[in-house]
Amino acid sequence: MNADKYRKYVLAQRPRYGVPTPSIFKLTAQDVPEPGSGQVRVRTAWLSMDPNVYGRVAKVSSHYQPIDLGSVMPGAAVGYVEASRHPGFREGDLVIGAWGWQTHHISDGSDLVKADPEVERPSHHLTAFGLSAFAAYIAVCENLDLQKGETISFGAAVGGLGQMVGQLARQRGARVIAITSGPEKCRIATERLGFDVCIDRTADKAIERISAEFAKSGVDAVVMAVGPGGLKLALPHFRRGGRVAVCGMIGSYAADTSASRDSMGFLLQEINQQRLSIFGVVAADHVGTALEAKFRHEMKQWLRQGAITPVEHVFEGLESAPAAFCGLFEGRNQGKAVVHVLR
Amino acid sequence: MNADKYRKYVLAQRPRYGVPTPSIFKLTAQDVPEPGSGQVRVRTAWLSMDPNVYGRVAKVSSHYQPIDLGSVMPGAAVGYVEASRHPGFREGDLVIGAWGWQTHHISDGSDLVKADPEVERPSHHLTAFGLSAFAAYIAVCENLDLQKGETISFGAAVGGLGQMVGQLARQRGARVIAITSGPEKCRIATERLGFDVCIDRTADKAIERISAEFAKSGVDAVVMAVGPGGLKLALPHFRRGGRVAVCGMIGSYAADTSASRDSMGFLLQEINQQRLSIFGVVAADHVGTALEAKFRHEMKQWLRQGAITPVEHVFEGLESAPAAFCGLFEGRNQGKAVVHVLR
Repeated sequence: MNADKYRKYVLAQRPRYGVPTPSIFKLTAQDVPEPGSGQVRVRTAWLSMDPNVYGRVAKVSSHYQPIDLGSVMPGAAVGYVEASRHPGFREGDLVIGAWGWQTHHISDGSDLVKADPEVERPSHHLTAFGLSAFAAYIAVCENLDLQKGETISFGAAVGGLGQMVGQLARQRGARVIAITSGPEKCRIATERLGFDVCIDRTADKAIERISAEFAKSGVDAVVMAVGPGGLKLALPHFRRGGRVAVCGMIGSYAADTSASRDSMGFLLQEINQQRLSIFGVVAADHVGTALEAKFRHEMKQWLRQGAITPVEHVFEGLESAPAAFCGLFEGRNQGKAVVHVLR
Repeated sequence: MNADKYRKYVLAQRPRYGVPTPSIFKLTAQDVPEPGSGQVRVRTAWLSMDPNVYGRVAKVSSHYQPIDLGSVMPGAAVGYVEASRHPGFREGDLVIGAWGWQTHHISDGSDLVKADPEVERPSHHLTAFGLSAFAAYIAVCENLDLQKGETISFGAAVGGLGQMVGQLARQRGARVIAITSGPEKCRIATERLGFDVCIDRTADKAIERISAEFAKSGVDAVVMAVGPGGLKLALPHFRRGGRVAVCGMIGSYAADTSASRDSMGFLLQEINQQRLSIFGVVAADHVGTALEAKFRHEMKQWLRQGAITPVEHVFEGLESAPAAFCGLFEGRNQGKAVVHVLR
């Protein structure tokens, strides 16, 4: 292949057994195209590799529009304008887009954003400022609102998401228990990124070590991006008020039936894909609060208006209490069970 | 037994096979006690039957302090002061507390609350204003913040929680798909409470009917209090931004190993017991928002300060893209994978 050619990777076939293999892509080469009037030609400098693209390659989900066979592989990219017939772009402009796995891109400008000149390294547009870093920020700083002294755990410790989750967590003074595969990535995580703990999940007794770390500090937050494995280990160790951010499930992309085989995996996948929120609700936590005062005030109005009707299943006499209580577990009560003791 | 006696139910044994049976309770009778100086004697009028008491009876969970064998069964109660040697209470005062399954209660007043005189029926303190109604309010009006036109589903349609969830949802203009057992409770739910749909889960083809109702409108919110069955059926039909409130798991109280057998059940149980929140996070949803601007501003500062270091696994040349992509799914990349195309 020659650098003077326009080279691109197209999707030649869909992955058959979950995990994608290099053979599903086909490299093609042709002459470098010239931009038409109002167009620019961009020379790709950097490409981002992101697992969510898999959803469009593999047709595993009804949530993604799959790309057609023969289409160029999609993905975030950074490049330089090398020929411009567009008044808004000049040769040498650094631009960002999603033109994917190709050396050149002809554009009318509508799918390009000019790079922020304050960002020093072009690749940082795809890493520090890429979608996975942004997802880490949303998770740690917004949804989880991680606090000093809390403990957070996540897998794929040095991946695009994990490396940012851990660093943002350290910034906030949280304890970081990361999980990854292999000693080299563990070393990067602890020595270079300063994570408190990083456990090699492929090592001996990894599950015991992970559980022991969770037990030591308790767990306040989990960021899930690979699969439910780490979350399952964390579950018995959550402190009250824990939070989970479900940012993806690479593990399930790569084994297309595993998610539906396991009901928790299916739940987590839908939480991500449909942006679900799940809350633990216990009324006793809110007794004596302003919320309770509001509830009582509103409920009085609703009762007066007849807008709400309590349906009471009245059991007569203290002696009916056992039957009333047991009925709760057998679906026998027709309304909220109350025992009328004073006759 | 005689109404002049002080009668109470104590826990005689713990339930052996999950579902409680009346034989675990023992009724005792003794003379009615006299209040000492600074005490009052309350005559129980109404008792509330709530499934969460089971956690303290059965020792199934490390989250509840189990009650001792021989102790009076706990529970919310309403009663009248019938003898007072306490300056703060007068004979005839209506009071609320948690003295449980007994006809009388001797108190120094510290565990009693005087009933709000604006509440017309004494039993309403345990139903319309009880903890399960309050939980319904927290779930529907706060956590789920149910909107007009949305669809909500829940089980135990006419139970203490469900009947309030559905009525609050109807008030907010939401569509209510309730589930219960038996035609009589379905009739109460639709005719008396005005729920849009109530499906008898014990009827023929119940699962198909529930799924068909969910498919018809999509699902925006689920309140879970019995077990994960309804949530599992709802999962494929959630609209984006759906919410789930996990208010309890009666189903798992009553079969103490089922929750741990199923990983989704275990997750949901912990969500309730530890008040976990789970979010679906997808960065693409927030592109172009104020949150993104904030992220970019902060990330620039962190990079300048050296507080955040992107770890990039650089693949050289467009031809390395397939390996870079496949590496994502095999844990081979040591850092955020980027392809350096322009050489």
